[in-house]
Amino acid sequence: MPFLSKLDAVTTKNKSLVCVGLDTDPAKIPAHLRTEVNPVLAFNRAIIEATADVVQSYKLNLAFYEALGPDAHETIRLTLDAIPTDIVTIGDGKRGDIGNTSAMYAAALFDGFGFDAVTVAPYMGYDSVQPFLAHKDKGVFILTLTSNKGSRDFQYLEVEGRPLYAHVLDRILEWNEAGNCGLVVGATHPSELAAIRATAGDMPILIPGLGAQGGDVEQSVRAGVTPAGLRGVFNSSRGILYASGERDFAARAREAAIALRDEINAALPSA
Amino acid sequence: MPFLSKLDAVTTKNKSLVCVGLDTDPAKIPAHLRTEVNPVLAFNRAIIEATADVVQSYKLNLAFYEALGPDAHETIRLTLDAIPTDIVTIGDGKRGDIGNTSAMYAAALFDGFGFDAVTVAPYMGYDSVQPFLAHKDKGVFILTLTSNKGSRDFQYLEVEGRPLYAHVLDRILEWNEAGNCGLVVGATHPSELAAIRATAGDMPILIPGLGAQGGDVEQSVRAGVTPAGLRGVFNSSRGILYASGERDFAARAREAAIALRDEINAALPSA
Repeated sequence: MPFLSKLDAVTTKNKSLVCVGLDTDPAKIPAHLRTEVNPVLAFNRAIIEATADVVQSYKLNLAFYEALGPDAHETIRLTLDAIPTDIVTIGDGKRGDIGNTSAMYAAALFDGFGFDAVTVAPYMGYDSVQPFLAHKDKGVFILTLTSNKGSRDFQYLEVEGRPLYAHVLDRILEWNEAGNCGLVVGATHPSELAAIRATAGDMPILIPGLGAQGGDVEQSVRAGVTPAGLRGVFNSSRGILYASGERDFAARAREAAIALRDEINAALPSA
Repeated sequence: MPFLSKLDAVTTKNKSLVCVGLDTDPAKIPAHLRTEVNPVLAFNRAIIEATADVVQSYKLNLAFYEALGPDAHETIRLTLDAIPTDIVTIGDGKRGDIGNTSAMYAAALFDGFGFDAVTVAPYMGYDSVQPFLAHKDKGVFILTLTSNKGSRDFQYLEVEGRPLYAHVLDRILEWNEAGNCGLVVGATHPSELAAIRATAGDMPILIPGLGAQGGDVEQSVRAGVTPAGLRGVFNSSRGILYASGERDFAARAREAAIALRDEINAALPSA
C-alpha cells in the first residue's frame, strides 16, 4: 500500500495523529525491566502493546539503537515485529550521502527493516535524496525546519529575500514526482509551520519538538494539519515513554498518549 | 592521543595521504570469497593487510555495513580490529540530530566502535554537532562542500554575497574550540577547495570524489593540503577496492594504493 494511503487509513481508524518516538534510553527504563535479556526490547513491547490502538505511528530514532552496539539490529527488528501492521513505522536516521551510498541506506531501512518511512537530511541535494524517493511506496520526510536551537544557525539564512528552509521546501516540492515526499518541521516554529503547510498542500509533515523541547500542541496542530485534519505526524518521545519510571509505566504511557491524542484532536479544524 | 597528532604521525610514518574507503559492496567481491562465512569481512581483512603500510587512514562508509543487516555491527567491529592501531579510522555516517540524539550517535561511534573520527552533517546547526566535538580527542569532519552533483542544490545558494558553504565554514571555525573539527570538501571542486584551505588554516580536510566521481588528483592535492603537505585525507574507494575482481584483488589494491600515494606525493608543495 502506498505510504500516504497507510498513513491516512491508520489516522482515521485510530482517530489519532500521535507518533510515539521510541527513543528508548536504557538508563531511563524502569528498574524491574533491567534484568530482562533485552531491556529496551521488553520496554518497547510493553509501550507498543499499551498504546497501539491510540496512535498513528511509531518513530524509532536509530541513534538510540545504534548506541546498543551488537544488539542494535535485533532490537530494531523485533521492535518493528511488535508493531501491528496497520500502524505506520518511521526510521528516523536523518541519512543522506552520495547516490550509491544513499541507495544502501534506503535498502537497509526499507528492504531490510521494512520501515514505512524514513527521515533524510537535505544538505547534499537531490541525488542524495533520490535513492530514497525511488522506493515509491515508502515515505521520505526531509528535514526542512528543525525543532532545535541550532535550526537558527543555517536554516534561516537569507537567500534571495527568503530563508534557506523555504528554498529547501521549493526543491522538495519539485522532487515530489512520486508523491512520497514529506517534511520535518519542528513544533517550536508554529508560525513558520503554518506558512510551510500553506505552501506544501497535502504533503505529510512530521512535527517533532512537543513536550521536552517546548513546542505548543494547540498552535502546532492548527498550523500543521491539512484542512481535513490529516497529514500531521506529531511526535512525542520522553513525555510518553517516561510518564512513569515505575511498574505502571505502560499504563501511564497509554494515559499520556491518549491525553496527547485528545489534545491534538481538540485543536483540529473539525473540532 | 589527540586526533590531529595521530593523523600527522601516520601521515609522516607511511608518507601517505591516502584514505582507503572501505565501502565494500558484497556484489563486487571476488567470487572466490563469496563462500566465506562473512565475505565482506574476509575482503576487508585482505585489503587492509595488503595496504596498511602505504595508507594514512581507512574510512568505513556505514551505509554499506548497515545494508548487511544483522551482520553490520560485527563486520564493522572486526574490520576495525584488523586495522593497525597507528592508522586513522573514520566512521563515515554523516550523522546529525538534536543534541541528546547526536550524543547517542557519538557514543556509538567513538565509545562503542572506537573510531578516531566521524563525518557529520551541518544542516541542524551547532547543537547537533557539539556532542561529537565534546569528544575532544576525536576528529569531527563536517560536510562543507560535497563532491556530488547535488552539492549545487543548496551549498552554492548565495547568502550575503557568498555561497552557503562559506557560511558553514565560518561557523565551523567558530565551533573549533577544542581543535578537533575537520571539513569534508569534494575533490570535484578544486578551486573552491583552495579557497577553503586558505581560510581553514591547518584544519584537516577529508577530500572524497577522486576516481569514480571524477576529481583530479594533482589539482585537489595542490588545493587541499597545508604548506607542510599535511592535513589532507584523500579518499579513494572503488579505484582501490575493485582494482581487480579476481584472486589477485588484494595485490592489485596495493598497487592502486601505492600509485595514488605516489601521485599525491608528487603534487605536494615539497615535491
